[in-house]
Amino acid sequence: MDTPGGGIETGFTAAGGIVNFSPEDAARLETLLRWRRDVRHFRPDPVPEALLVRLRTMMALAPSVGNARPWRVLSVKSATLRAAVRALFEQENRVAAAGYDPEHAEVYARLKLAGLDRAPEQLAIFMLEDPEAGHRLGRCTMPETLHQSTAMAIHTLWLAARAENLGLGMVSILDPRHMEHLLQVPEGWRFSAYLCLGWPETHDDTPLLHRTGWQENTPTVWEER
Amino acid sequence: MDTPGGGIETGFTAAGGIVNFSPEDAARLETLLRWRRDVRHFRPDPVPEALLVRLRTMMALAPSVGNARPWRVLSVKSATLRAAVRALFEQENRVAAAGYDPEHAEVYARLKLAGLDRAPEQLAIFMLEDPEAGHRLGRCTMPETLHQSTAMAIHTLWLAARAENLGLGMVSILDPRHMEHLLQVPEGWRFSAYLCLGWPETHDDTPLLHRTGWQENTPTVWEER
Repeated sequence: MDTPGGGIETGFTAAGGIVNFSPEDAARLETLLRWRRDVRHFRPDPVPEALLVRLRTMMALAPSVGNARPWRVLSVKSATLRAAVRALFEQENRVAAAGYDPEHAEVYARLKLAGLDRAPEQLAIFMLEDPEAGHRLGRCTMPETLHQSTAMAIHTLWLAARAENLGLGMVSILDPRHMEHLLQVPEGWRFSAYLCLGWPETHDDTPLLHRTGWQENTPTVWEER
Repeated sequence: MDTPGGGIETGFTAAGGIVNFSPEDAARLETLLRWRRDVRHFRPDPVPEALLVRLRTMMALAPSVGNARPWRVLSVKSATLRAAVRALFEQENRVAAAGYDPEHAEVYARLKLAGLDRAPEQLAIFMLEDPEAGHRLGRCTMPETLHQSTAMAIHTLWLAARAENLGLGMVSILDPRHMEHLLQVPEGWRFSAYLCLGWPETHDDTPLLHRTGWQENTPTVWEER
């Protein structure tokens, strides 16, 4: 994919410097978006290193406000650290669950724990709170642009993983300061999310479940002014 | 696309409830990510309503933490409001530019103004600061998940627009409180970004510029723990 102007493999045409995507490209993106899912049940099979390298390349294509590129990825391999993350999740989830109907809280916790216990790849995503890149463009008025850029990078990884038939689950019920301390990150790294990545166990990940999910998704209201 | 299990038009196969994306799907996504761009120069031609409807459908497929779906879209049609947004940009940009090399600050401001002056569609994106949907899941420990979800929706729209050969430019140099006041949004809506959308003027949007851009993109470092 070093010569994206070629247009042979990927269906788009590039003539006179103008790139044109076909209706099929839009349809494929829609399919990918519809089948993107928050996966919690993984097969334990490892993800080949070459595939992880492709995902890194894709994530690096994410947009960022002022091109600040504030995201940092820690691949958590150590079993000791993974167990500690699991314990931090359980601790925070007890606090969070106190406000919910106990049955749903338990179901929810089991789902997340299933991901943390089995996902072959686990990625802690951090955001630089004061990146040198981008020269603070956009951040003077809206410091949340760093959160936005990091989230767009996570979403890029999510779609890239899906296109490779991998699943990704995002865990946010973790105390950011505890995660930063646990993983001993450099000064200025703020915890953004913990991602579980691997091959989905398809037998409890049926299209029906997802069709139901689509129904639950209310359309985005666009108002006019 | 109401029957995504069909697999006829979009290249993926669905057998026994298992969806499989092909290597071509991953390659197409990579092409789309590589050619995704922050567009500032638009042709004034309107964007057909049917196309805007498709983009809305795509944006509604964005993931959100706890399925909170906190994004709201205001389509700014009024010439008076557009002029007021432009004035707010100029005001904030003067403040932001004070910290930069004047020549670059001016070039940058001209780019953004070009988008604000010509983009046929202009969308103000807001984030609900306390959405009912999602029941606060994930937000107890990390309130920034609402920013993350809204950014993933913006990114979804960005990619969907690109796949339809539209361009999108994101403007963040705007005072959020002023934007909320100007557009008289409901209580609890927080300004996230202002998006310029339209057909890119390809003659100053050359692949060369983008190839240069890719070179500037440093690879994402994945460290291990």
